[in-house]
Amino acid sequence: MKVSELGEFGLIERIREELGAQDKARTVLGPRSKLLIGIGDDAALWQSTAAAHLATTDTLVAGVHFPRENVSWIDLGWKALAANVSDIAAMGGTPEYALVTLALPDDFEVDDVLALYRGMIAVGREYGVVIAGGDMVRASDVTITVALTGRASESQRGEPLALCRNAARDGDLIAVSGSLGNAAGGLRLLTENKPCPPEAASFLRRAQLRPHPRVELGQALLRTGIRCAIDISDGLAQDLGHVCEASGFGAAVRLADIPISEYLSRAFADDAVAMAVSGGEDYELLFTGPAGVVDRVRGRFAIPITVIGSIVEDSKRRVRFFDEKGQEVSFPSAGWDHFGGHADHADRQAGGTGR
Amino acid sequence: MKVSELGEFGLIERIREELGAQDKARTVLGPRSKLLIGIGDDAALWQSTAAAHLATTDTLVAGVHFPRENVSWIDLGWKALAANVSDIAAMGGTPEYALVTLALPDDFEVDDVLALYRGMIAVGREYGVVIAGGDMVRASDVTITVALTGRASESQRGEPLALCRNAARDGDLIAVSGSLGNAAGGLRLLTENKPCPPEAASFLRRAQLRPHPRVELGQALLRTGIRCAIDISDGLAQDLGHVCEASGFGAAVRLADIPISEYLSRAFADDAVAMAVSGGEDYELLFTGPAGVVDRVRGRFAIPITVIGSIVEDSKRRVRFFDEKGQEVSFPSAGWDHFGGHADHADRQAGGTGR
Repeated sequence: MKVSELGEFGLIERIREELGAQDKARTVLGPRSKLLIGIGDDAALWQSTAAAHLATTDTLVAGVHFPRENVSWIDLGWKALAANVSDIAAMGGTPEYALVTLALPDDFEVDDVLALYRGMIAVGREYGVVIAGGDMVRASDVTITVALTGRASESQRGEPLALCRNAARDGDLIAVSGSLGNAAGGLRLLTENKPCPPEAASFLRRAQLRPHPRVELGQALLRTGIRCAIDISDGLAQDLGHVCEASGFGAAVRLADIPISEYLSRAFADDAVAMAVSGGEDYELLFTGPAGVVDRVRGRFAIPITVIGSIVEDSKRRVRFFDEKGQEVSFPSAGWDHFGGHADHADRQAGGTGR
Repeated sequence: MKVSELGEFGLIERIREELGAQDKARTVLGPRSKLLIGIGDDAALWQSTAAAHLATTDTLVAGVHFPRENVSWIDLGWKALAANVSDIAAMGGTPEYALVTLALPDDFEVDDVLALYRGMIAVGREYGVVIAGGDMVRASDVTITVALTGRASESQRGEPLALCRNAARDGDLIAVSGSLGNAAGGLRLLTENKPCPPEAASFLRRAQLRPHPRVELGQALLRTGIRCAIDISDGLAQDLGHVCEASGFGAAVRLADIPISEYLSRAFADDAVAMAVSGGEDYELLFTGPAGVVDRVRGRFAIPITVIGSIVEDSKRRVRFFDEKGQEVSFPSAGWDHFGGHADHADRQAGGTGR
């Protein structure tokens, strides 16, 4: 059935039924927060004992952020919400309530709308997020906009409430969680007809379609004394560039130290490093801090943490990459610009969206 | 200059400059709330002493919610944020922080983006709302999505924290603020070539382009003991229908009692009543309550409050309109459905968007 046959209010009713799958108990997010009014009123209402709050928003547009072929709506729902969860993770916070806006053409299938919601509900179940409202409009593009609130960590003894982009300092080490480039590898497998060992293909596709934001890690970084972080949504080069721009420093990265999975190296032997530098949507955390603090962090988590370089004085705030001989290496397509950058990225349909 | 020439990050920089116009002091929303991190990080961060919070989102799509001709971008910016402020008003809350997502084609003018923001900043100045973040994506439609947070009223002695749609009770009086149909009149003046006295034209156009949500009234209603309210964004018939649907009752409305401005009666003598019943976007408040409570409300506010009917037992939850002889009158196009209702509304480009 098409959405135009069911009508807006019929569709909202179906979505409310689907959201019944959000376990009732889940609307109480621990002792800290409780949803009082969800979908169906003019605004969502919740009680909270938190003293500081976070909010972020992120949009996926069909044909711009994802190919409409080869990707299922349930995976897109997962990704639309996960991208926002990752922004809250990058602040060291706890995600709470999501508002979901769908812009859809008249001939969009009702079952596909419900699949989108199922993907989001699955993220919600894993990360304790409740879908509390939204909007639905008719448009020619399929667009999924999620706004997500969260609570900030509690400040102790005047410590900061959140990890920030502008808190990198000269001499800080630069570290990343997990391994990079996997989501870019997955995207290439989805769009190109490239042979790949099945286990690697499954790992890389999963990295692209079902990213797992690092919420607990973000919270733990803040507790351990880290002050500067960002999530890698637009790619290492670009996101580290945002940190340098905001903090007023440059960065020097050793290419050989960038963590790359065995699966990615095996599937894309020639391009793995470039994909780890420029590929977006890994949703790992990048953070900086003094060596002593980063050392404390490294021993403490199950997730691999790798130091890849350091923050340096640089009035031009450049991100520079160096090979094992200390030679600078440049990458042609190290970024993603929504309006300016298509020429360099004709082969890349997915990309980060965050400001 | 086109947005594609300036690029995403250049555009964000220009918007940040424009937002400098948000007076620095305004980021402290009274003693209750203070923005710590705005645009430029992964999420916005604010401190708040409120115990309960609100969030809503509303989208305008060019060609669906507004004609691209005859309407300026600054007016659209105003309306995009005002529609969300009205949802917070309908809950009796105080709007606080907005996240703004723009989906734009490559050839959109940078000056028009800045005009959109100026319209939103003007609403922010009037209602104490701070634009704290957002997203920007490339798309073929021009779409403006605003997510807005707010704080709920303080509960005293266990009173409800918000006005709700589902709180109407049998025998409640139904009342509305201001007068209805003016925004629909303004839309017709913008799209038809109809002669109209200049003073009336200016009043009606302003009602359509620069709606003023009833934030203080919503807060006062809650304090006075009103429990049920909705804002009139989709039109009286439809929004009262939402109240009936949610509360499990019907409504009987006396057409002669619906408040209609002299300007609307003069400009649209034959259609004024139908426009007041079916026209959306007035952003007045509709509320219900026992006669004693509604009487207390009526004497107390500068804004006109008019009783137009009452809540009745009706298993079919109908909204019924009656003339002075007690005869039921039906209206052909009493509503707006994003996916189902275009056939009945071919002449109506603007409409409410809220769930």
